[in-house]
Amino acid sequence: MEIIKYPLQEEWASIAKRPSLDVTSLFDTVRSVLNDVRNSGDEAVRRYEEKFDKVLLSELVASESEKEEAYGLVDESLKDAICCAHKNIETFHASQRFTGRKIETTSGVTCWQKAVAIEKVGLYVPGGTAPLFSTVLMLAVPAKIAGCKEIVLCTPPGKDGKVNPAILYAAKVAGVSKVCKIGGIQAIAAMAYGTESVPKVYKIFGPGNQYVTAAKQLVSLKDVAIDMPAGPSEVAVIADVSANPEFIAADFLSQAEHGKDSQAILVTVDEALIQPVCDAINSQLSVLPRAEITAQALTNSRIILMKDKNEVMDFINYYAPEHLIIQTEDYAELAGKVENAGSVFMGPYTPESAGDYASGTNHTLPTNGYAHAYSGVNLDSFIKKITFQEITSEGISKLGPTIQIMAENEQLEAHRNAVTVRLKTL
Amino acid sequence: MEIIKYPLQEEWASIAKRPSLDVTSLFDTVRSVLNDVRNSGDEAVRRYEEKFDKVLLSELVASESEKEEAYGLVDESLKDAICCAHKNIETFHASQRFTGRKIETTSGVTCWQKAVAIEKVGLYVPGGTAPLFSTVLMLAVPAKIAGCKEIVLCTPPGKDGKVNPAILYAAKVAGVSKVCKIGGIQAIAAMAYGTESVPKVYKIFGPGNQYVTAAKQLVSLKDVAIDMPAGPSEVAVIADVSANPEFIAADFLSQAEHGKDSQAILVTVDEALIQPVCDAINSQLSVLPRAEITAQALTNSRIILMKDKNEVMDFINYYAPEHLIIQTEDYAELAGKVENAGSVFMGPYTPESAGDYASGTNHTLPTNGYAHAYSGVNLDSFIKKITFQEITSEGISKLGPTIQIMAENEQLEAHRNAVTVRLKTL
Repeated sequence: MEIIKYPLQEEWASIAKRPSLDVTSLFDTVRSVLNDVRNSGDEAVRRYEEKFDKVLLSELVASESEKEEAYGLVDESLKDAICCAHKNIETFHASQRFTGRKIETTSGVTCWQKAVAIEKVGLYVPGGTAPLFSTVLMLAVPAKIAGCKEIVLCTPPGKDGKVNPAILYAAKVAGVSKVCKIGGIQAIAAMAYGTESVPKVYKIFGPGNQYVTAAKQLVSLKDVAIDMPAGPSEVAVIADVSANPEFIAADFLSQAEHGKDSQAILVTVDEALIQPVCDAINSQLSVLPRAEITAQALTNSRIILMKDKNEVMDFINYYAPEHLIIQTEDYAELAGKVENAGSVFMGPYTPESAGDYASGTNHTLPTNGYAHAYSGVNLDSFIKKITFQEITSEGISKLGPTIQIMAENEQLEAHRNAVTVRLKTL
Repeated sequence: MEIIKYPLQEEWASIAKRPSLDVTSLFDTVRSVLNDVRNSGDEAVRRYEEKFDKVLLSELVASESEKEEAYGLVDESLKDAICCAHKNIETFHASQRFTGRKIETTSGVTCWQKAVAIEKVGLYVPGGTAPLFSTVLMLAVPAKIAGCKEIVLCTPPGKDGKVNPAILYAAKVAGVSKVCKIGGIQAIAAMAYGTESVPKVYKIFGPGNQYVTAAKQLVSLKDVAIDMPAGPSEVAVIADVSANPEFIAADFLSQAEHGKDSQAILVTVDEALIQPVCDAINSQLSVLPRAEITAQALTNSRIILMKDKNEVMDFINYYAPEHLIIQTEDYAELAGKVENAGSVFMGPYTPESAGDYASGTNHTLPTNGYAHAYSGVNLDSFIKKITFQEITSEGISKLGPTIQIMAENEQLEAHRNAVTVRLKTL
C-alpha cells in the first residue's frame, strides 16, 4: 500500500487511476457466443452451460419444486436478515416514486411527465464462491416497486445443476418472476434476444466478470439498455484524527476483499492518523480468510496526505469514488461538498457494508470515475419518464406563430404546415 | 405508402421494423479518427475540419466578436420566437427539479438522494442545409437549469469558417459556455478526450449522422456517458373519424421531411379515414420544398387498420414510437394506456412540431423502439442522484446483526468485521 504525501495536482491523474480492464479485446469471442444464442436459442445456451459451467441442464428455468426445496434449506437467521434488508431497501426505493405535475407553459399549452415501468427487465447475478443474494435484492426490489411486469433473473447454476438456495429465497422475497440457470455471456445473450425459455428483456442489470461486462457492452450498442458500465469496486475514505483507526482499517479491508483489482484510498490531512491505520490494517488482515486476495488489492490502494480539507474535497470530486466514507468531526459539512460519488457513508457508525446489504440504499454503483456522469441504480433505473402534452385551440393560436417562424428558419416547411392547417380552421 | 388491413400479430414485428442502420461497420474508420484526436488534440481536429468540412480554422472556438456580429444578423422575429421557446422549455424543465427526502429505514438509519449536476457536458448540433438552433435550446436549457458548470457546444462551421448566427444566438440565450467550430467524429472525440481548445466533458448529447452516432457509441463504451442510442426519427398517429385528415396528413409529412429514413405510421380502426388521409397527403406533398426526401420517407411509412382500440394500443406499445400523436374523441383515455413512447401529443391542436420547437417538452427522444427502456432527454439527463446515509450508534446496534449475518453468508468476512469493530465499541 502506497503512502503519498502532499502530491502535486499534476500527479492526481496517476493517483486516481484504477486497475480497470479494457474488455474490448474480448469483443470477438463474446460476439460469437452472442450470435450463437441469438440464432440457436436454448440449444446454444445449454451447449455453453455445459462448456463453461460444466453442467448438463434439461430445464433452464428453476422449477417450483426446486424453489420450494431450496427455501427449506436456508437458515432461519439468514431468512430473517434477508427480510430485514428487503424491508429497508423497499422503504428507501419506494420513497423515490415519481409523480409528474401538469405545467402550463403558455396559456392553453400543458406539459407533463409520467413514470411508466420498463415492462421486462433482466437481472444478472454472478456465481462464484459465494452466493450474491444481496445483489438479487438490490436489483429486484426496485424493479418490483417500479412495476416491471416481468423480472427475469439469470445466475449460473452449481455443478449439481441447481441454483443456490439463498439466491432463490431472496428472489422469492423480492418478487422475481423467473429464475434461469444460466451464467456468463450466454445469460446476457438470452436476456437480450430471448430464447424458448428466457423472455427478451428491454434492460439488463447487474455485475459480472469481464466476459459478462463485454457482453453487456456489446448488446447495449443496439439491442437492449444496460444499467451502467462496470469496473472493479472501490472505496475512498476521508478521515481525521477524530476517527477510530480500527474502523478505517475495517472499511479498507472490506473493500479490498472484493477482488484483486479492488481499490481503497484514504485521504487525510492528519499525518498522525497514518501509522495507526496501517497497523490496524495489518493486524486485521492477518485473521481474514480471504487474506491473499485482500493483500493483493491493497497493492492498488493508497493513503494520501493532503494540505487542507478543500484540497481533500477537490481530489475526492476528481476521483469520483463509487463509495465514499467520511469519518471526520465535520463529516456533515464535507458531505455537503460532494459532487461526484456513487454513495456516501457519513460518520463513525456508517460502514460501507451497511449500504452493501441492508441500510436501504442501493449497492449497484458507478465505478472507475463513472460517478462523474452516472447515478447508482435507483427507482429511475426501472422506469421511463414519458412526456405528454395537450394544446387547446387557444394554445395553438398563441404558440403557433412561434413554431411557424422557427420551422421556417430551420427550412422545415412541413413542420410549419402542421401548425398552418390547424390555425386555418380556427 | 403501404396500407395494411387487419394484420395478424405474427406480422407485427415486420410492420414495426424501422429503416435503421447498423453503424458497427463504421467502427474501424471512426476509431482511427477518435485515436488521432486523442493523441494529437487540436492539430488533428484542424486536419479533419479541413478534410471533412473543407475549412481551414485558426481558432476552434467562436470568438466574442464573431458572436456579437452574429447576434446582429438574426431577424428580430426569429429572436422573439427563440426567446418564447426558451421560456417554455425552461418552465417545463425547471419543474423537473428534484429534491431528495430523508428516509429513516430503521431507527437511527437515515438515507437520502441528492441531485448534483454533471459538471461538464458536451452538446453536438449537426450542420447541413439548415441550422438546428432548436436542438441548441433542447440540450442547453436543461443543462443550465441542472447547474452544469461547463456547457460545451460543438457544431460544424460553414465554408466561411463561421457558425450559423441563429445557433450562436440560441446558445447565448440558453447559456452555453463555449461554442466550438467542430463537426463529425472529431467533435465527439474532442469532447470525449479534451484538446487544447475543447474541455473534456463527462456526457455527450445530441443527434448526428451515422459517423457521429458510431463515434458516440464507441466513446460511450469506456470514456464518457451519452444521452441515448440514436436512430432515424419517427411518428405514430392514432386517429379515428373524428380527426381532420388534413391535420393527420400534415403531421405525417412533417415527420417524413426529416430525412429519407424517417418513418410515419397511422393506426386506426376506421377504414373510412384512410382515403381522405391519403388524398390530403398527396395534395400537401405536392407543394413542399423537400418533396423528394419526403416522398422517399413515405415509402417507409404505413397506414394500419386494426380491429379495435385495445389492439391499437397493444400495437403502439409494441412499436414504442418516438412521437405519438393521438387524434381521437377519447384521446385522453388512450393516452392513459401508453406504456412505451418518447413524447405524446394529445388532441386535435397538438401537432408534433409544437414539441419539436416550443411547447416546453424536449425533442431529443428515443427512436427505433428504444422507448421501451429509455426516456427522452429531461432534467435527469444532466444530473446524478448521489445517495447519502448516516447511521447512529443506535442504528448500527439495531441493523448490525443483519449485516453480519448477510456478510457471513456471502463469505465476506471483512464486510462483517466492519460492523463487528463498531459494535465492540458500543
